[in-house]
Amino acid sequence: MAVPEAASPVQLCRIMRPDDANVAGNVHGGIILKMIEEAGCLVGTRHCNTQNKDCCMAALVRVEKTDFLAPVFIGEVVHVSAEITYTSKHSLEVQVKVMAENILTGSKKLANKAALWYVPCSLQNVNKIMEVPPIKYASVEQEEEGRERYEAQKLERLETKARIEEVLPPPPNREQYSIGFSQSTLIHLVGPSDCTIHSYVHGGVTMKLMDEVAGIVAARHCNTNIVTASVEAINFHRKIPNGSVVTLVGRLTFVSNKSMEIEVLVDASSLMEKEKYRAVSAFFTFMSLGQDKQPLSVPPLKIHGEEEQRRFEDGKARYLQNKAKRLAEKERQM
Amino acid sequence: MAVPEAASPVQLCRIMRPDDANVAGNVHGGIILKMIEEAGCLVGTRHCNTQNKDCCMAALVRVEKTDFLAPVFIGEVVHVSAEITYTSKHSLEVQVKVMAENILTGSKKLANKAALWYVPCSLQNVNKIMEVPPIKYASVEQEEEGRERYEAQKLERLETKARIEEVLPPPPNREQYSIGFSQSTLIHLVGPSDCTIHSYVHGGVTMKLMDEVAGIVAARHCNTNIVTASVEAINFHRKIPNGSVVTLVGRLTFVSNKSMEIEVLVDASSLMEKEKYRAVSAFFTFMSLGQDKQPLSVPPLKIHGEEEQRRFEDGKARYLQNKAKRLAEKERQM
Amino acid sequence: MAVPEAASPVQLCRIMRPDDANVAGNVHGGIILKMIEEAGCLVGTRHCNTQNKDCCMAALVRVEKTDFLAPVFIGEVVHVSAEITYTSKHSLEVQVKVMAENILTGSKKLANKAALWYVPCSLQNVNKIMEVPPIKYASVEQEEEGRERYEAQKLERLETKARIEEVLPPPPNREQYSIGFSQSTLIHLVGPSDCTIHSYVHGGVTMKLMDEVAGIVAARHCNTNIVTASVEAINFHRKIPNGSVVTLVGRLTFVSNKSMEIEVLVDASSLMEKEKYRAVSAFFTFMSLGQDKQPLSVPPLKIHGEEEQRRFEDGKARYLQNKAKRLAEKERQM
Repeated sequence: MAVPEAASPVQLCRIMRPDDANVAGNVHGGIILKMIEEAGCLVGTRHCNTQNKDCCMAALVRVEKTDFLAPVFIGEVVHVSAEITYTSKHSLEVQVKVMAENILTGSKKLANKAALWYVPCSLQNVNKIMEVPPIKYASVEQEEEGRERYEAQKLERLETKARIEEVLPPPPNREQYSIGFSQSTLIHLVGPSDCTIHSYVHGGVTMKLMDEVAGIVAARHCNTNIVTASVEAINFHRKIPNGSVVTLVGRLTFVSNKSMEIEVLVDASSLMEKEKYRAVSAFFTFMSLGQDKQPLSVPPLKIHGEEEQRRFEDGKARYLQNKAKRLAEKERQM
Repeated sequence: MAVPEAASPVQLCRIMRPDDANVAGNVHGGIILKMIEEAGCLVGTRHCNTQNKDCCMAALVRVEKTDFLAPVFIGEVVHVSAEITYTSKHSLEVQVKVMAENILTGSKKLANKAALWYVPCSLQNVNKIMEVPPIKYASVEQEEEGRERYEAQKLERLETKARIEEVLPPPPNREQYSIGFSQSTLIHLVGPSDCTIHSYVHGGVTMKLMDEVAGIVAARHCNTNIVTASVEAINFHRKIPNGSVVTLVGRLTFVSNKSMEIEVLVDASSLMEKEKYRAVSAFFTFMSLGQDKQPLSVPPLKIHGEEEQRRFEDGKARYLQNKAKRLAEKERQM
Repeated sequence: MAVPEAASPVQLCRIMRPDDANVAGNVHGGIILKMIEEAGCLVGTRHCNTQNKDCCMAALVRVEKTDFLAPVFIGEVVHVSAEITYTSKHSLEVQVKVMAENILTGSKKLANKAALWYVPCSLQNVNKIMEVPPIKYASVEQEEEGRERYEAQKLERLETKARIEEVLPPPPNREQYSIGFSQSTLIHLVGPSDCTIHSYVHGGVTMKLMDEVAGIVAARHCNTNIVTASVEAINFHRKIPNGSVVTLVGRLTFVSNKSMEIEVLVDASSLMEKEKYRAVSAFFTFMSLGQDKQPLSVPPLKIHGEEEQRRFEDGKARYLQNKAKRLAEKERQM
């Protein structure tokens, strides 16, 4: 079998408009996530169609944990570049870099780095997974590192698949700073603009909605200008077809001194059937900003009951783990 | 036949963005009307598919008179909750409540209350009206009140169906404060985003465009910041398919000291056929606001000819009737 | 004064969605024009801010005649690359190439080539024209050719500025195949998404609306699937601020056996003032396509009066001139 040329990277860029941002001018994290996924889907789909006989579309199955490294503002130009960095028999990894450029001053900053996993689905039969043409690696080490990332995410996807069915949205509550107080729901009717050519919702569209509901939760809890700081790995277990009704519930799980963790549960149902299914879930971390754009203290969370306490402890564990990782990275860089 | 559980209400919410508002920051009434109809369509469609064998879609046939009780601004979160409140054999009534929440201060206000009537159309054959599964009522009185509302609207829909064909847009005119001076036209090419999954324009999309053209008329007449105050009952006589060209004409019919009534006529035509048909018409009432957001006096209207005079008298009658109703309601509340 | 590096080209790309196309799946020419202008504005603005002290924005003043060389379909990925090719003291030329890629088959085609002229306006004072930093040329010939293009367009812009004020929309008419029959109007209220950061409408947004109204005219005349074939040079005489009402009138001027020429007149007015001004005008050429996507014959145009006859002759002259140019080019290539 002939090995194809390394797939050429994809570059996407556009100016940020008023509708991409909140009232304070900060571009929503969800807009960036949507652009990242668009670039990933593009480079993945293009690569998978170089060899397969059946036409296919790259479907998003996972986004690795990602950090928003610098805020982006209205009027800046966002450049998204996506490249295939690993291929297994049936999936591929795309690494994406997001730069924000101020075209008035010429300054550029790294706004985000992300890694996404895609699986090629046949356009004739969306449940048929196609084979991925292998890429060439610059070195044996590079391939080996890719394989390790592949095995790690595969394991985690299996684990969360088991876990995902349990969760249920908690009852609402009117006491300020409680979880029920800021809990928010968003219902969206999926239309053609939300979908790929095989009429399933773009992963990026789902992430944008998730960021939107998480942002509402965060703003309700702290009544300030809020921004997305990071997103834990997201697994896309079920595809959502055009015409579906998507229900997104966001609720606070953990609050540190300067950050809020919000769990977002995404359920989908056909307009025509009553049954709902859990399509995706994820943890978003938001920060609260003052008028000087510096992080503010976040009001502590009022916990009620064992369930909330358990989720709080889990969130705290994730928080401490991320903090330890950041410290380790800093030390390594010194 | 088993009676299904009372259909669960639908909640929709989203943050108001710059594109949802005019330059002064006031959210367009049309944006609220569009959200109201989306929630109504959703709760209605979902309910009708609990029992029918054929899949069906709830099609909007009428919106009762509705008042904009409080202004909504960019950055506020709008919550729309919709609930089925009456079912006849072939139609259902949805009542919708719109709350606007300032997530920074936590304050909430009631922005709108509306009642909509839907009819379930088969997806296989859009002209086939399906049966509506009955809902349970909390009391006999509740059901009786619903039946009265049902009979009243049925009668009015029949009446306006007869009346609707007569009206024609008046000729343009260049004299300021005349009806022809502010008369405005909007032509919109219907695209897929405007449509439901059975490829007919969402009633809410039509109402948004109607509000837009009425707003242009109002602003041209008084050259100030204008807002939608209320909308008379709207009957949707004909469905508008995807690919149609929709022509909306707005013209002043009546002006009181602090309000303007604008009639909006919606004609649709297929790009491929020459025949136009009147799809909808309605009366919008707008107010003019000063920089302090308080109502301003509206310049009097210059009437030309009998036709304009007749429409003016009709508008005045509606104005006086609404005023009397509001007064009666106030007295009852005291 | 130090000469800056040749400005780096800009690449823009995105997947074509259902909303970008007509019911037959053909992407609207206006969508391509909008992307072309976005890329041009970006590369121009970035270049002009490398040296100026005042921040500035590149404002579109002219688009040269452009041909749609191949149709683009939903699901294809459009790549737009823009490069600065000439700079005078106060203006710059951007050349743009549009490739459409079918990511399923890997095939690519050249969809459009365009040349745009921009002038840098100060953000502090939009009427202040800034200086353009000079670019380096690969050869003396390249610079000389650029200067010739610059002089030619300068002359033409002056000429059309004088001419533009005369034209007025003709009266409507109900006789099929007459000019009045297919004449169409579109009224659009300019919102924040339509505007650059200095709150003036993007030239590309205006062109998209122009293509939309021209498409309605063409479809009304021949009742078939229509596509944009080419656009004559467009001069942007007046900037349109946010909050304006834009009125676009499209009318047939000339019809050949297989093409229709439509003149589009764009008038803008502030909602608050009564005066209208002609902001832009242009000639679009459309073709009519059969179900096999092959060009169909176009019904002949019924001309009434001297004015229509004069415009028809002018259109015919443009048609013959373009035909002669194409032939000359073909011969040169052989």
